[in-house]
Formats: sequence, structure tokens, C-alpha cells
Amino acid sequence: MKALIYKSLKRVAIESRPIPRVTAATDAIVKLSRTTICGTDLHLIQGDVPTCQPGRILGHEGVGRVHEIGAGVNRYKPGDHVVISCISACGTCDYCRKGMCSHCTTGGWILGNTIDGTQAEYVRIPHADTSLHPIPEGADERALVMVSDIFPTGFECGVLNGKVQPGSTVAIVGAGPVGLAALITAQLYAPSTIIMLDQDENRLRVAKQLGATHTVNPATNANAADTVKSLTEGLGCDTVIEAVGIPQTFATCQDLVAPGGTIANVGVHGTKVDLHLENLWDRNIAITTRLVDATTAPMLLKLIKAGKLNPSQLITHDFAFKDIEKAYDTFHAAAQHDALKVVINFDE
Amino acid sequence: MKALIYKSLKRVAIESRPIPRVTAATDAIVKLSRTTICGTDLHLIQGDVPTCQPGRILGHEGVGRVHEIGAGVNRYKPGDHVVISCISACGTCDYCRKGMCSHCTTGGWILGNTIDGTQAEYVRIPHADTSLHPIPEGADERALVMVSDIFPTGFECGVLNGKVQPGSTVAIVGAGPVGLAALITAQLYAPSTIIMLDQDENRLRVAKQLGATHTVNPATNANAADTVKSLTEGLGCDTVIEAVGIPQTFATCQDLVAPGGTIANVGVHGTKVDLHLENLWDRNIAITTRLVDATTAPMLLKLIKAGKLNPSQLITHDFAFKDIEKAYDTFHAAAQHDALKVVINFDE
Amino acid sequence: MKALIYKSLKRVAIESRPIPRVTAATDAIVKLSRTTICGTDLHLIQGDVPTCQPGRILGHEGVGRVHEIGAGVNRYKPGDHVVISCISACGTCDYCRKGMCSHCTTGGWILGNTIDGTQAEYVRIPHADTSLHPIPEGADERALVMVSDIFPTGFECGVLNGKVQPGSTVAIVGAGPVGLAALITAQLYAPSTIIMLDQDENRLRVAKQLGATHTVNPATNANAADTVKSLTEGLGCDTVIEAVGIPQTFATCQDLVAPGGTIANVGVHGTKVDLHLENLWDRNIAITTRLVDATTAPMLLKLIKAGKLNPSQLITHDFAFKDIEKAYDTFHAAAQHDALKVVINFDE
Amino acid sequence: MKALIYKSLKRVAIESRPIPRVTAATDAIVKLSRTTICGTDLHLIQGDVPTCQPGRILGHEGVGRVHEIGAGVNRYKPGDHVVISCISACGTCDYCRKGMCSHCTTGGWILGNTIDGTQAEYVRIPHADTSLHPIPEGADERALVMVSDIFPTGFECGVLNGKVQPGSTVAIVGAGPVGLAALITAQLYAPSTIIMLDQDENRLRVAKQLGATHTVNPATNANAADTVKSLTEGLGCDTVIEAVGIPQTFATCQDLVAPGGTIANVGVHGTKVDLHLENLWDRNIAITTRLVDATTAPMLLKLIKAGKLNPSQLITHDFAFKDIEKAYDTFHAAAQHDALKVVINFDE
Repeated sequence: MKALIYKSLKRVAIESRPIPRVTAATDAIVKLSRTTICGTDLHLIQGDVPTCQPGRILGHEGVGRVHEIGAGVNRYKPGDHVVISCISACGTCDYCRKGMCSHCTTGGWILGNTIDGTQAEYVRIPHADTSLHPIPEGADERALVMVSDIFPTGFECGVLNGKVQPGSTVAIVGAGPVGLAALITAQLYAPSTIIMLDQDENRLRVAKQLGATHTVNPATNANAADTVKSLTEGLGCDTVIEAVGIPQTFATCQDLVAPGGTIANVGVHGTKVDLHLENLWDRNIAITTRLVDATTAPMLLKLIKAGKLNPSQLITHDFAFKDIEKAYDTFHAAAQHDALKVVINFDE
Repeated sequence: MKALIYKSLKRVAIESRPIPRVTAATDAIVKLSRTTICGTDLHLIQGDVPTCQPGRILGHEGVGRVHEIGAGVNRYKPGDHVVISCISACGTCDYCRKGMCSHCTTGGWILGNTIDGTQAEYVRIPHADTSLHPIPEGADERALVMVSDIFPTGFECGVLNGKVQPGSTVAIVGAGPVGLAALITAQLYAPSTIIMLDQDENRLRVAKQLGATHTVNPATNANAADTVKSLTEGLGCDTVIEAVGIPQTFATCQDLVAPGGTIANVGVHGTKVDLHLENLWDRNIAITTRLVDATTAPMLLKLIKAGKLNPSQLITHDFAFKDIEKAYDTFHAAAQHDALKVVINFDE
Repeated sequence: MKALIYKSLKRVAIESRPIPRVTAATDAIVKLSRTTICGTDLHLIQGDVPTCQPGRILGHEGVGRVHEIGAGVNRYKPGDHVVISCISACGTCDYCRKGMCSHCTTGGWILGNTIDGTQAEYVRIPHADTSLHPIPEGADERALVMVSDIFPTGFECGVLNGKVQPGSTVAIVGAGPVGLAALITAQLYAPSTIIMLDQDENRLRVAKQLGATHTVNPATNANAADTVKSLTEGLGCDTVIEAVGIPQTFATCQDLVAPGGTIANVGVHGTKVDLHLENLWDRNIAITTRLVDATTAPMLLKLIKAGKLNPSQLITHDFAFKDIEKAYDTFHAAAQHDALKVVINFDE
Repeated sequence: MKALIYKSLKRVAIESRPIPRVTAATDAIVKLSRTTICGTDLHLIQGDVPTCQPGRILGHEGVGRVHEIGAGVNRYKPGDHVVISCISACGTCDYCRKGMCSHCTTGGWILGNTIDGTQAEYVRIPHADTSLHPIPEGADERALVMVSDIFPTGFECGVLNGKVQPGSTVAIVGAGPVGLAALITAQLYAPSTIIMLDQDENRLRVAKQLGATHTVNPATNANAADTVKSLTEGLGCDTVIEAVGIPQTFATCQDLVAPGGTIANVGVHGTKVDLHLENLWDRNIAITTRLVDATTAPMLLKLIKAGKLNPSQLITHDFAFKDIEKAYDTFHAAAQHDALKVVINFDE
């Protein structure tokens, strides 16, 4: 089969590899029909994630058909149409049992990281019963690639951790794909105000189309925090979602949060940040972190099926798998291409 | 009347002042029978709290009898035996209505800060109906001084924010009075393990008597975090309570927290701290801050009345009000005197 | 002034009465501009609520301007434009402090019940600071009459108690005004399915327009419960809202609830009902009851101001106050007039 | 092997049966060392549970050693010392993933009901990874028989569903083993008051020893509800736990519950009951039902290991397995023997 390999720093290439086989009774092999590229993949090839070494097949998102199953797989059979979860979950360890599958003792985020991933014609999925989701007949398969990772990430790490509630005020710092996924899913709770902050005017335009009530560009507005406060009766926001992952944006979040509010961190951070406890110790706030557990994927699929969520809104580009290197280039230079999520399509 | 005045940096003195009068319909005047000194009072006289200026009568804790009431006070009448809440709460503003009385728009922590306080023979209590608590007949008044501030603080900022649950594991960093109040009240939720960390061996001894299952002294144990992990199956603690307020102890908390756990900050911080999001972004933790709302005082009083909580365990010294300056000295050099809370008794 | 008086069984009449005066420091007098009639008013005049005796001015909903205030009212001044809460709340008793204002020891539902109400040119509002809500400039006053009672009732007793969540399935038994208010506000939580049951085809048509995904008419569908199950993968509904108040509809709810689900009772019941614990004891369900606390009115007002909720959808008829007896007739024969809520307008 | 067989109405007998074998990859065979008899077993042999037919090996509680495992069992190996959960849980179906294992689509309460159970020398446990719990070295095995069912039942169905909280008031109707398990585990949340109601004076004596603050005997106190109210400031109880399962006791619960409180049903009901919604519709209460999910067993084991819970307090009698029919007689005539739980011990 053909697979995208992490070759060396900043270099990926399509190579031939053997089709993976079932190695444990609970494995399934899935033949991919579509995959996508995550911001994390860009981090990986820049060497930021030491658990992932050159030679690895990248990718942790995708949809396809079950090709082969192990003897212990009960919920799926060959031919079943499935979404692959970015989180492999055994369903039996202490973490899985409390819904914290991201920390599964024999799973978690391993696809395209410590084991071969989904940017290939076939992929081996451990713990298949609890790491795949059935796709209903007639669903728009292309949109469902967003349910592997980015929609659960925006929803769980941003919206649920941020405790968005009817009538509450929300600021989202960073209008990249994950920030926009948070924006879309925040509306499941009917906040009164959602303010999007980003330095890219195109992304702010998209945010407005996707439901932001206000947008603020800190690149051109030196008093972004004051603007946010003026939109929220001087209080700041009940929920502030950090969807970038650098000290400067985390600092902005501390300026935006209202007394009693929550900063929900979604961004992947590479360095420590300053936490201004001298200002915040008496403000009754919470700061949360989370690697997506992807436990809400079934619920999100239900809403997509009911027509209440449309994740295809985030897809801006399509590529054939043979052009995946070009897709990496486009996604890497996202601002230049007005790119959000790019879908990689395998041949039928 | 006699009152303790914040004179100038590090200097307090007893002076004569007029007995306060009702100035708003919802005020009550309380004649104090006992008060105490809070760690915050020490911060105040070191100039760390700019809202409190010299000339102010200090103190935000105490018990006594209602002396006079305004026309709008409905729940109390002269002679009623009451605990004074450290938080004055109007009960009607948006913050009060959501239980966040610490941020009451016309109250909050104002006693002994922006208005005259309780280290005096009489004190004016604004919003009396929602800022006093009735003392049941026959209660041990001396113990109830702990319900003005330190018990609600340990419980709300430490135990509730820290989400202590039956069977969970708890570390408390700092075995001063507020850390010990958290220790006592954490046991209301039956955690399986409570590990107390402090550099003072006497305080660790007290902690053991008050219910800590283990104690660790970072001054003599260079691998305190490893010790805590070895006591918790290698995971760290579900709840970590910061009860000191300096960057070093906050750093310790980050080393102790288990995946999925919470760091509940109680300490008053004067400077920013490092937050290691490069380690914590994917650990599904929460960090909380809180100025006590004191909304749990009625519940705590109920448990004290039922004999299920005994706050007098924290009282180590008694002084007559005329000796309050000496009480400040003792409380300031607490380690030297094995002092926890000191009670100041007014003449009958 | 003119006021609508409950004269005797099933008889009401407009009479002249003195304008009410402030009798406690926390009272306000409000000059009404609009009021409405509640299903409860119909119960009252049929003698079902023994606390309300002939001679009473009816009504517990309305909007208007503050006319006069007592010395202890801080949040309002004459001329302020306000919504009157159907629940009078002191804000200081134990019930109010835990948000259960319906059981306020000196308030609760007293307007138009144990004290004179809002179907009059003027009304005395006790505990005004915590029993009125400010109307923002430029708001559609007519729509806000729905915030006195029916919107908080549908939302608190139905949606919040029923734990409606994103992706969940909801059945609402009864498409009268309160059932429809539950339907509208349930959508604040983005359930995937909302099934409305009623015997009146017009109300089912309205329900469809207001967001019901499906409607079922038990009068013409002998297998209503089977139909609901077929719409919910055979499980029944996560939330079942009872919005009628008779044994038969409560029985239907027990047939519709899924394992793990909740029956949220909103209806006012006059007799006991059968509870089939022999079927339900092992189904992990909850049944809730609630008299509206009206604590969510500020949040609902925020959403209305933001354009995310439109309560005027429920208003079908307008009457001048002089014609209020006719309004009672219309509301009483609602099905015949396709009536939902009727607004009573006072002269300017 | 020897096994206790449900022969016919009210008749059980020891018979020889083949040792069960692994039939699915996720099965384990456990060799029992101890088991017990549940009140439900008495219901079964009276024919009250039609899913259980004569010929069945009874029993759903026990401890022992793993004897054999299927190829898909990862957490256990032969020789491991385990507690058997009364609930078999696949860990992968929708119910299991939301923690409602009682409704597992291929499990739930099946042991000694629809498949052979634990009152035998060996038992086959389906879904072994998620239906057994490891016993720590040196634990008191005999006490742990209580963790199969009765402790999780009292805790989950009574205490958790009943929302017992620090300082709250609790009434438990029925001081049989499950009521007493609720009594013991309610204390994990430090309520201020726990009132036990039963008609058996011995059981009330035991309740006092196990932590009840008050006891009431409705057989000798015609005004039991008034007595409970007098102990709770006239309000009734925040939590009322029904631990009998007949209409009369459920009626008592409705008399005891405070406004805002919860009736947590634990009893197994055979007939419908009257629900007085005409009194309760406006009292803001909840009624909950639950078949134990047994998801809290790991937490309970942690507390037992830490010495914070002692389930052996409920054990009054021990029998050898060969005498199990006598054990049934004793348990059936519990009041006459002052029996609570009886432990059945297999030969070494």
C-alpha cells in the first residue's frame, strides 16, 4: 500500500509499505477513504513531539471501511463504514472507565504518533470496539472526517471544559480550525455572545459567517481586552478558549476572563507561561487543560445526522492522496491559501 | 470604644474611637465578644493590600451580640448572638445571586479593609441580614470565631474547588491554619488519602492528629514529589490544595497533581508564577482560584452543632483584647510559638 | 384605579380599588403597562387554590414602570422600566440563598394569590430589589410579559430539571403555552430530537413551526408511545416533560421515558397519580417537580436582548384592559380561538 | 462441582453440575471462596423475577480466584484474587460508556438470573475485564463479599442518587442490609442527621451503632413523620432513601421529604404506588430509581483498603456451602435470627 512517511525534520514522503495485519484480538484493519492533516502533524514533523520518530506513518483522523477484524471485535465486521477516533481507548482501564480515554493505559493518542497512522491506504486500529464509530447510511462521509479529532477537540477541551451555558459570554482566542470548531460547537449551548480574536482578517470573516457575534483583531486593535470588556458590560467573558498555544495568547486570556469565569486551554504549548496569580487569586476563576478524550463523538454524530451541526463548513480544500505532500504545503501556509481543513481523498 | 488601628507600616495600636452608628437601613451594629487575627491582617500591615490605608480599624472575623439595627434589618434584633461573616453580601446583586458573594458589588471583603473592622468593641456590619449568622443556644462561642473566615476559606477555596470526593487522594501544601482548615473539612468527603506537606515539624504533627494520613517535609525530603507519587500508585493526587501563596509552593503543586486532577489555590499571591503548560496542556487538569464567598458558613455551623466538626482544634492561644498587640506578635512568629489561631477575648 | 377582581366561583369583574401604597421599606409600586392571563388564573377562579379567596386582585405577570419605592429599595427608582417576576423573593432566607425562591419564607408565588396582583393599573411588589428585572432600552416590552412566568417555568421546570443536553432526545406532553415555552427553551441546549404530543392539531402545527422535530397526536394515534420509540431507536426519550397535569398524561410520560432518563413535571396536578415502580424501579430514571423559582429570568432577558430567543412567538391575541373579561373567555376556550398567550394592554 | 439450584417455587437444593468453561474470548472462570445470599435471591425463588427459571444456579455475589481465562482477557490471569461484580459489563456499549452498566446490552444483572451464578464452586464471568475487581494483598476477603452488590447498591442507588451532602439531613426507610449499607456509606458525605426508620427494634439498635443519629419505629410511633420533622426544624429531610419496596413505605417517603429534597428509591417494587403529585408538584423534589451499576466498587475497595469503611459490620452469620439451604432459611427468617448478611464459605 501507499503511505505518508515522516522522513526527517520537516520532510514527509509517500512510500510503499505492507498492508497492516491484525496483531491483537481486539484490532481491526480499516481501509481509508478519506483522511486529513492536523495542526499536530505539523508539530510532529518539526520534531516537537519526541514520541514520534522518523519512519512513522502519520495521521490520526479518517473515515473508511472495516477490512479485517480480530477475534475479539464484536461491534464491527468487514465492510462496515466507520469514523476512526484519534483516541484509541481500551474501555477497561481506570482512565477509560472515568471517560478520560486520552490517558488510556494502552491507548490514548497513539495513531500516527507511537504506532502507524491514517495517512495511508490501510491502518491498524487497536481496541477497535471502542475506537471506531459507525457511520449511518447516507451520511456525508467527507464531513465526518472532522469527527475524528477536531470537532471533539473544540467541543470537549473548549466548550465543555469552558462550561459554556445559555446566555453566557465566550471569547475564543485563535480562529484556526480548532478555534472555529469550538465556535461552531459552543453554539450548542446558546451563549449570548461569542467574540472571536485572531490576527487574520479572513479567518475573522469566516468566524462571523459561522456564528461569532463579534470579532476583534489584536493586530490592528491595541486595546483588544478593552474592546472585549466593552462588549460584556465591563466584566470580561465567562468562558475564554485558548486555541493557539503560545505565552502571548495565554496572557490575553488572563486579561479577558470575567470574575467567576474559566480559561479553557486547547492550544498545544511548547514552553511555560506566566500565570498572574497576583491578580487572579481572588477572582474565582478556573483554568483547564485537556487532551481530547473523543468521548463525545457519538453525540456529535447524532447531531450531524439530525442536521443540527455541519462540520463540512470547515473544509476549504480537497486533495487526492497522491498529492498529500502538496496538501501539507497548503495547510502549512494556511493564511496564504485561506485554508482551514484540507481533506485527502483516496481512490475508490 | 477601644479599637485596634493600623497606624503605619508594620505598626498597630489600640486607640479610642466613637462607637459606630447605623448609616444605612440594612446595617447592624455588633458588640464583639471575641475576634481573631488572620494571616491577611499581617499582609495588610505590611502594606500588601493598597485598598487598606492607615487609620483603619483592622479585623474581619468575630462573634458577638447585635447592639443596634437599621430599619431594613429583618432577621436580627438587638441581643441576638451572631457570627460575623468576613464577607459582606447584599444578597441582591448578580454576583450574590449566583453565590459569588466575595464579589458583591457593594460588599465582599470590606471589613477591616475598606471599612472599619472587628478588632474593636463594636463594628458596623452592612447588609446585616445576609452578612451575619445566628448562633444556636448553648454553642461554644469561642470555636465559632473560626466560622467567620478560616473554615469557609479552607472548605470553599480548597475542598469544594478541589472537588474532593469519597476515595480520592488529596495533597495539601502548607499546614498553616488555612491548610489545616482544609485538612479538617476535606474529611467531610471521606478521601482515602490526605498528604500534608510543610517545612514545620510541629505543624505536621498537628496535621497527623487532625486526620492527615501521611505527612511530608520538603525541607528534609529532597524528593517530596516522588514520595507523594509513591503514596498514590505513581499517579499523584486528585486534589492538590495550595495553602501558602508563593511561586515555589505553586510549582510543587504542579508536580503533585494527577492526570485529571485539580490544583485548588487558596494562598494569597503577591507575584506571578510559572505555569508549565508545556507539561500540563494534555493532562486534563484544572487550576482554580477563589476568594472565599462564605456561603457555606450555615452548613458548617450545622455540622458544628451536630458535633461532626470541631473548629476549636485550631485554637492554640487566647488573649484579652487589651493584649492584642502581643497577640499580633505571637501570630506573626507563629512557628516559634507553635501558634495556629489566636482568639482575642473582649471583656464581658 | 381599575382592577380585575376574583368575585366568586368562575366569576371575575373589573372594579375600582385604591392605588396600593408602600407598606414595607423593601416594597415598590409598579404602574402596569401590560399583563397577561396564566393557566393558573383559570384554576384560581375554579376554586382549586384555596389560598386565594374572593376579593383578590388576580395576576402575577406583567411589565410596567416603577411608580414609588420604599426606603430600602436600592436597585430601582421611579420611572424605571421593569418586568415583574411571578415569584417574590426576599433574597435572604435559606431557600432564596439556595436559589429556591419559589419557597421564599416571606414570598414565593403570592401575587394574585395571597396578596393583590398584576391585573390592575398598579401593583405593590414586596422585596422589589429581588422581584423585578430591569428592561433594557429599546426592548420589545410586549414580548417581555412572557418573562414574568411562562418562559422561566418552561425552562426551569421542564428543560433544566429535565437535563436537556446537546444531542439528547426530548418528548413534551402538552403543547399549550407552557409546553411550547419548554419547546422553545429546550433548543437552547441543542437536543437532536424534540417530539411534541398533543390532541390539538393546531397546537401541533405551531409546535412544528417553533422547532419540534416531530409531532404525535394521541387522539388519532393509538400507539403514541410506540411511535415515540420508533423515533428514538427504540429507547424512548432522555427527557420527558409533563405539561398538562392529569393522571393520564403522567402515565404517558412513564411510557415514553428511556432508561436513564428524566420525567420533568411542569403540570399542576389536582389528584394523585399512579407511579409504576414495578416497571421503573430498575430503569435508573428521575422524576422531578418544581414550582418555578424564576431565577433564570435575567439569563433569558440576556438571550432575548441578543436576539437568540423570541418569546413573542407565543402571543396570539391582544386585548385592552377594559376587555379583560373577554380575554379570560378567549383564553378559557383556547382551542376554539387558536389562542396561546393573550396580552392585556393598559392605556398609556 | 456442587451448586445451589433453584428447583421450583420456594425450593432450592445443592446438586452436582459440570464446571463451567470459557465460551467467549472475554470470559473468565472463577473458583469461589465465599458467596452470600441477597434479598433478591428470596424474590427469585418466590417466582417474582420471570427471567429466572428453575434449573438456574443462583447467586450474583462472591469472591474467589481466577481459574481460567479466555484469549481476550487482559487484566486478569489464573490465580488472581478477585471480587465478582453483581453487574456484568461489556465496557463498550452505549450504556456502559455512560456508566450505566446495569443496562449493558450484553450484560447487566445476569448472574444467577439469566445465566448461572455464584452459589457454586465455580462460575463463568462474561466480560471479565470489566466485571471483576482485583483484591489487594492482605485484604479481609470475607468483608469484600459485601462489595459485589450490597455496598454499591446502598451507595449508588441511595446515597449518590439521593445527593447526600455535608450537613444535609437524611432519612432511611428500612434498616435491612441494604438500608444499613446506605447508612454506612451515607457517612462518606458527612450529613448532619441520619434518621433510620424500621419496625424491628434490633435493626434500629444496629443502626445506632452504625452511625444513625436518630431512630424511629413506625410500629410504635403513630406520628413518625411528625417526629422526623421535629428533628429537622420542621422541614423534613433533604434525602429520603426507600429501602423496602412496598407502597406503604414509599408513601412514608413522600411524607418525609423536605422541599427541594430527593426520594432515592432502592427497594424492589412488585406493584404500582400512589404518587401524590397534588401535594408534591410544587415542592421541587426529585424521585430517583436505579438498578445498581456497581461502577463505584473500585472506589469503595479503595476506602476499605484505607480503613475508612468496614463492610464486615453487616455480617452476622457464617455457613459452610454444604449448609447453604440452612443459610437461606436463616436469611429468610432474618428478624427471628437477628440476621443481616450471611456469608457462605467454600472449602479451601
